[in-house]
Amino acid sequence: MDLKNDILLRALLRQPVDRTPVWIMRQAGRYLPEYLKTRAEAGSFMNLCQSPELACEVTLQPLRRFKLDAAIIFSDILTIPDAMGLNLYFITGEGPKFEHPIRTVDDIRKLPSLAVNESLGYVMDAVALTRRELDGKVPLIGFSGSPWTLATYMIEGGSSKTFSRAKKLLYQEPQMAHMLLEKLAATVTDYLNAQIESGAQAVQIFDTWGGALSSQAYREFSLAYMQQIVSGLKRRHEGRQIPVILFSKGCNTQLEALADTGCDALGVDWTITLNEARQRVGDRVALQGNLDPSILLASKEVIRKEVGETLRSFGAGNGHVFNLGHGITPEVDPDHLSELLDAVSELSPAYHG
Amino acid sequence: MDLKNDILLRALLRQPVDRTPVWIMRQAGRYLPEYLKTRAEAGSFMNLCQSPELACEVTLQPLRRFKLDAAIIFSDILTIPDAMGLNLYFITGEGPKFEHPIRTVDDIRKLPSLAVNESLGYVMDAVALTRRELDGKVPLIGFSGSPWTLATYMIEGGSSKTFSRAKKLLYQEPQMAHMLLEKLAATVTDYLNAQIESGAQAVQIFDTWGGALSSQAYREFSLAYMQQIVSGLKRRHEGRQIPVILFSKGCNTQLEALADTGCDALGVDWTITLNEARQRVGDRVALQGNLDPSILLASKEVIRKEVGETLRSFGAGNGHVFNLGHGITPEVDPDHLSELLDAVSELSPAYHG
Repeated sequence: MDLKNDILLRALLRQPVDRTPVWIMRQAGRYLPEYLKTRAEAGSFMNLCQSPELACEVTLQPLRRFKLDAAIIFSDILTIPDAMGLNLYFITGEGPKFEHPIRTVDDIRKLPSLAVNESLGYVMDAVALTRRELDGKVPLIGFSGSPWTLATYMIEGGSSKTFSRAKKLLYQEPQMAHMLLEKLAATVTDYLNAQIESGAQAVQIFDTWGGALSSQAYREFSLAYMQQIVSGLKRRHEGRQIPVILFSKGCNTQLEALADTGCDALGVDWTITLNEARQRVGDRVALQGNLDPSILLASKEVIRKEVGETLRSFGAGNGHVFNLGHGITPEVDPDHLSELLDAVSELSPAYHG
Repeated sequence: MDLKNDILLRALLRQPVDRTPVWIMRQAGRYLPEYLKTRAEAGSFMNLCQSPELACEVTLQPLRRFKLDAAIIFSDILTIPDAMGLNLYFITGEGPKFEHPIRTVDDIRKLPSLAVNESLGYVMDAVALTRRELDGKVPLIGFSGSPWTLATYMIEGGSSKTFSRAKKLLYQEPQMAHMLLEKLAATVTDYLNAQIESGAQAVQIFDTWGGALSSQAYREFSLAYMQQIVSGLKRRHEGRQIPVILFSKGCNTQLEALADTGCDALGVDWTITLNEARQRVGDRVALQGNLDPSILLASKEVIRKEVGETLRSFGAGNGHVFNLGHGITPEVDPDHLSELLDAVSELSPAYHG
């Protein structure tokens, strides 16, 4: 089964392309009426994640509507802690919660080592099914939360503004924090490798809360574990290289260090220009981003103009994957996303070849 | 009335000092039992802000307990929009809200021009009273929210995760956004000048949500207006220079541009080391910060170690004011703040003279 459109994979590896590839974080999501319909049928968000057929269906939905250069498997970043027994659940409007958050050092010691193909078999089934259904149309991206980001939810029991409990563990009992992060890093490595073996053709690590840490704590407690994962990933499969993308939101001061992990590409949020990011990382990695998702709420004219600015900021040459700087939000009109994609398709060839 | 301790003012102006001065953002706050008592007596947070006697009392409370090198007037960053008729109120656990948020372009046009000494006379009274009560013990800092930060609350009606409404205005109707920010910048300038005339000996602008903007939007919609304010401030009063501090949280990629506004000092959050920040801004401004407030939840040994790291990161020389990288949080044990202050006092002389 040949890949008919491998422009994303080539751009992630900084190889020549004739236009800038584009996919959108959370492209299978609540802004799409067909997603809301499937989600309602699923009964709950967890059912949607855990049914390979439904997860495959919502993964493919945006590709039926839009010209996107990749699919990303529909799942949640918190599947690993859920499988470790913390029991993930969602209350509408409140974000994710764990029924059994980590409250004591003993809770960390007792966390099980997962056999990911069993405990998270539903993810691998969804990846394999989606890969089959895609039939080589575009590559399929697998993903995981970073160890630090998973740890914050596990310790806080859900989202947090200050991450006080999680940070208290880092500062007060660093050896226990390292035990937890070590366990998570090993599991994330297995998890991403299993996704690759099931058919994922690129993988992304979401370090959503890296930006909550001090520069030193970030390197010790988040970056080091992402680096460990990058080193442990299967970088070739089915005769192709598997690009690895790191996205550490709010960590623009760490771009050089992130580029040194050995990953292929960095996700960049909108608080830095691609031009500046590119100057700082040089030729080491590709860059993915970085339009502010809020721009999709403005008019089509504004969207087109801002897409142009983003392309111009990266400039000519290899190694740009167009994306937002964070996930698309539920209030976006899907027609506005079409405008973004059309603009990338029309304006980007000028920066290539 | 002579100032007995002017070490803060000297450090902000990069003049020699024999130890590093320290104050703490939100030092008059919910972690102090005496504050909670006064707040309960006041009945509501707004009553506390609007009574000069009570505001003075809570401003002085931390100085009775701790060896701090400054007082900061107790108030709220949202007093200006409240006085413009948006009516600020607080629901416990939900953050600030406005009864009449900006919903239409017409709401922006109709915003009144404030005569700050009348509409916000209670703030000037609190500043004057506190200055008198301080009796030259330490300098008094005045403050305001930045135009962009005020605008986000005015448009969103309260706190926000994505700032979608506010950003939609910037991108969709930039001329109306500029009209609003222009009005706010003029009012903030008057407001800070009135605080200076009432006795404030330094002023700080809190740009709490600058980090939500793209690099380009930040310069156009936040930085430009802070620069305008800096240019319009009364920089000498009572024969002394009035230092101006800008604190733009999450905007570390903008430090050079912030240093070029003509301010005296920059607040720095904990996502960048002071060493790196100092390398980037050079001798142009002093730096204030930058311990992660969560460290105050750890043990005294850890606090002392991290204070040492922060001092070492800035290194020897003039122009460091010790502070947290954001406000102190309610769950902190006041004894832990004492440990921080003792550590700064004991460890910092090694970096001076």
